[in-house]
Amino acid sequence: MHFQATTLHMNLRYGIVGVGGIGGYFGGRLAERGYDVHFLFHSDYEYVKQNGLRVDSIDGDFSLPRVNAYHRAQDMPVCDVILVCLKTTQNYLLKDILPHITNSQSLVILVQNGLGIEAQLGKTFPDMNIAGGLAFIGTGKIGQGHISHTDFGRIKVGMFQGKGEDKLQQMQEDFSENKVKIEISENLQKARWEKLVWNIPYNGLCVVMNTTCDLLQKQLDMRQLSHDMMLEVVAAAEACGTPMSANIVDKMLALTDGMTPYSPSMKLDFDHKRQMEIEAIYTLPIAEAAAHGYNMSKVKMLEQQIKFIQSQY
Amino acid sequence: MHFQATTLHMNLRYGIVGVGGIGGYFGGRLAERGYDVHFLFHSDYEYVKQNGLRVDSIDGDFSLPRVNAYHRAQDMPVCDVILVCLKTTQNYLLKDILPHITNSQSLVILVQNGLGIEAQLGKTFPDMNIAGGLAFIGTGKIGQGHISHTDFGRIKVGMFQGKGEDKLQQMQEDFSENKVKIEISENLQKARWEKLVWNIPYNGLCVVMNTTCDLLQKQLDMRQLSHDMMLEVVAAAEACGTPMSANIVDKMLALTDGMTPYSPSMKLDFDHKRQMEIEAIYTLPIAEAAAHGYNMSKVKMLEQQIKFIQSQY
Repeated sequence: MHFQATTLHMNLRYGIVGVGGIGGYFGGRLAERGYDVHFLFHSDYEYVKQNGLRVDSIDGDFSLPRVNAYHRAQDMPVCDVILVCLKTTQNYLLKDILPHITNSQSLVILVQNGLGIEAQLGKTFPDMNIAGGLAFIGTGKIGQGHISHTDFGRIKVGMFQGKGEDKLQQMQEDFSENKVKIEISENLQKARWEKLVWNIPYNGLCVVMNTTCDLLQKQLDMRQLSHDMMLEVVAAAEACGTPMSANIVDKMLALTDGMTPYSPSMKLDFDHKRQMEIEAIYTLPIAEAAAHGYNMSKVKMLEQQIKFIQSQY
Repeated sequence: MHFQATTLHMNLRYGIVGVGGIGGYFGGRLAERGYDVHFLFHSDYEYVKQNGLRVDSIDGDFSLPRVNAYHRAQDMPVCDVILVCLKTTQNYLLKDILPHITNSQSLVILVQNGLGIEAQLGKTFPDMNIAGGLAFIGTGKIGQGHISHTDFGRIKVGMFQGKGEDKLQQMQEDFSENKVKIEISENLQKARWEKLVWNIPYNGLCVVMNTTCDLLQKQLDMRQLSHDMMLEVVAAAEACGTPMSANIVDKMLALTDGMTPYSPSMKLDFDHKRQMEIEAIYTLPIAEAAAHGYNMSKVKMLEQQIKFIQSQY
């Protein structure tokens, strides 16, 4: 099955770098509709080449018996849009991967958590067109080539440097047929801080308390602590020049109440004794706030606790 | 073997309420020298009545084949000095125990952690002579009637209400023959805050991080966090009118560096899924500080984390 919408202006070639829950789901949705998608796999390459990709999704299950799977970036074609869906802990790989699959027109979108990661990439590639993306989705890899999607399913994107607005709009159209909503933000930093309002309390607390979001929500002390840490993130964002709407904390708490029992990505990393995204989600935001005169006291304590836990792996 | 020092002015009868690591060690040291000591046991009563009490101590092991062991307070004689060595979580029992073993001259010493516990007892017994005691000792019950003493071994005592200074001095003499140093403080509140400088970071962090003090000390983030929480306790004490010496934080860190690998009492409670002394060590000090206008931000976060952990037992 291969068809394309009549409103298409560009036939974008997509590259998916990192095929975990995020890359597998979003890339899979594009491939499902016949778009030209190329996946760079790490450990699942052999399996997916033989067996394809399977996605269990609250918005409809699907399987892709054959996908354009690669094990090495130098075997991939140059792509128009590259969705980087690696963990930020793997971003050191990008300096070797991206030159193979980009040209001067390509747009690289870091669909990752945290703050300050586009700036890190921009230092390595000053002329690269770079955007950021924030995935609002509950998804994870539950087996080789097997993705489970349990909550939500949208991406907020915004330009960081260079040009690429037209590609973001085209991507928005391409995904619109596919149960994935792409929202284009004029203020990437603000979008990143907003997502941190959720990510900072729940990722770290699920690791340190060795639990899931729903249990944190139900217990009054943890609910209060999540609330108070969210207020610290809001205050930090404001100190950094990106004020937020007053009700974001209540909105995030309500959002979490509505989720199925859920382990955030950092908790899954912890469960599998993988490196956690401490730098992008904690260290860089704390440093950014401190540089603007705001001390994230409780968030810093949570960072220290997670760093201790990782040191004991 | 039974002899007494020639300097004795009073022959004090001692009651030990709660025979864990603290009560077993200190009461045991008195009984070892032939003093008149009466122990109120809970779970170990039958065992100790048959087999006596055994203490493994860095200051010399000893066994007491026969001790004055009781299972019910109403079977005990009235005592001159009562060392309450229960966990503070058991203090609700005192209203039923103490009337049986005290008269108007008796002195009750709460050898317990935390802050504000003498005031709680004083509310129940406004006319009781009440002192507080702080044990500086590494000790624990490692089996029925079996105490292990691994570090230090002194008590700092101070009057809270009523009279009893003469009894404190006599107790100091009685213990002085016995490798136990009793230090009499003129300022019980200050002594309690000083001990909290140690107890607040290490008890809670050992529970939340599920580790021992030595591992916290060795990891830079936890060492920094312990340091920062100590500063919060010092600031709280100062807000409450009990300023401390400037070097107490460095002293406590050095003291902990010198300890053998050690689990604080709250960690032992956690390991055995017993109720933890959250109220005395965290809730009451946080409330006292808040009443004096100081917000213990990190300490409050640690309290919330411990409360969550206990709620998941």
